[in-house]
Amino acid sequence: MNPPITLIGSGNVAWHLGPALENAGYPVIEIFSREKRNAKALVKRLYNADHTSSLDFKESSSHVFIICIPDDAIEEVAKEIIIPEHAILLHTSGNTEMNILEYSATSNYGVFYPLQTFSKNKKLSFTEIPILLESSNKDTYKIIEKIAKSISENTYKVNSQQRKRVHIAAVFASNFVNHLLSLSEEILRKQNLDFDILKPLIIEQVTKSLNIDPENAQTGPAYRKDFKTLDNHVEILQNEYSEELVDIYKMLTQSIIDHYS
Amino acid sequence: MNPPITLIGSGNVAWHLGPALENAGYPVIEIFSREKRNAKALVKRLYNADHTSSLDFKESSSHVFIICIPDDAIEEVAKEIIIPEHAILLHTSGNTEMNILEYSATSNYGVFYPLQTFSKNKKLSFTEIPILLESSNKDTYKIIEKIAKSISENTYKVNSQQRKRVHIAAVFASNFVNHLLSLSEEILRKQNLDFDILKPLIIEQVTKSLNIDPENAQTGPAYRKDFKTLDNHVEILQNEYSEELVDIYKMLTQSIIDHYS
Repeated sequence: MNPPITLIGSGNVAWHLGPALENAGYPVIEIFSREKRNAKALVKRLYNADHTSSLDFKESSSHVFIICIPDDAIEEVAKEIIIPEHAILLHTSGNTEMNILEYSATSNYGVFYPLQTFSKNKKLSFTEIPILLESSNKDTYKIIEKIAKSISENTYKVNSQQRKRVHIAAVFASNFVNHLLSLSEEILRKQNLDFDILKPLIIEQVTKSLNIDPENAQTGPAYRKDFKTLDNHVEILQNEYSEELVDIYKMLTQSIIDHYS
Repeated sequence: MNPPITLIGSGNVAWHLGPALENAGYPVIEIFSREKRNAKALVKRLYNADHTSSLDFKESSSHVFIICIPDDAIEEVAKEIIIPEHAILLHTSGNTEMNILEYSATSNYGVFYPLQTFSKNKKLSFTEIPILLESSNKDTYKIIEKIAKSISENTYKVNSQQRKRVHIAAVFASNFVNHLLSLSEEILRKQNLDFDILKPLIIEQVTKSLNIDPENAQTGPAYRKDFKTLDNHVEILQNEYSEELVDIYKMLTQSIIDHYS
């Protein structure tokens, strides 16, 4: 039988991870959360889970405890939580070292990091989400790998050092990309043009980047070293937009030129 | 009957535009190109087009001449080309003013700019591609709008000033976004990790940005003002990666912080 699971937290990760675990045959029996409303909404998504606001799980029949809370609260919870002997304690953070869990009462701990952006109102299939795994010992690894493989086709063994760098790469590929889309929308807004006008281009560009690799998909005036257009763009940005847009334009343009020289 | 069309150029834009026009009922009867091999390959994609390497179209039965060549060659072609009286001369460039065509022999000219990234080996449906239109007079506009609407559901009247700014926005949303994906791949490569690990995140992030608007889709340590993580990332980039990555990280982080303050 699959070991029962307890989720610590009721935010976006727990919201998606809970039902995915249950669908894969892992009963989620407890939700710890100090946010009652969130916890109750998540409990409703599950077959037979209870809400608790105590971190004392000495008497719990759960075997795996997954911490899904903001990074800066993990250490405190790890120190406070009491779990049954031999149970496993995991966190789900990209940027937090595994060893933050070593001060908990268990010697079986690890990381179960789903590399994805989660929001509650958006359905997600876990099947393709990469899950990055790390553990304090081999037996723990076997168990958490089995759980990960039951919900995703992409699991990776990644240590804390690597995971942090993956997280930095994710900042570039997700947070920064999204911000550039915001800036492009801002530029259009000043021309009374709708962001919709750019959407087919964005979809095609990103599809191409992922299919043939971004380095093979680079185009544009910087790539062509079309200095006339580049100067013209900088001039327009200088005259009509913010210093910030000028600086970002210049820096990314220079980076493209350097990369393809 | 729909007016016959001549394409000047046999690059990526002509490659996709030619067949799209024919499917919409506009016969493409001539391809001008100095690149014989490209021209012949394009002629093969068309029903009944001829290849020519002369810009003298005095005797042509074509009514619309569409220049699809690199920006810096448009002016020269416009000055050299001879087209029948009353025929229309168009260019397809995002960053080139319409008036560059005023020195041609015709008073009917304009811009027919498909806002998309084209590559020959990738099939594309024109239906969703925005086409930005501008013309020297109303009669010309009517004709080119009819052509544009026959191949795309998204046509916009956009003057040269606006078009240039749309092009700048496209550089942010397409060229710069692609380059950030290259940088993220570079960061992963140093950890011996494959770019595949980021793909589900990128797809989900961009889908979300387009669905709920990038400003509503922003997440990450800069957005959360999680200075501990930000400092940690900068330190890692400083110690293990290039100065360039540090600068880009700092600049985009600051821009996100400023935007959401």
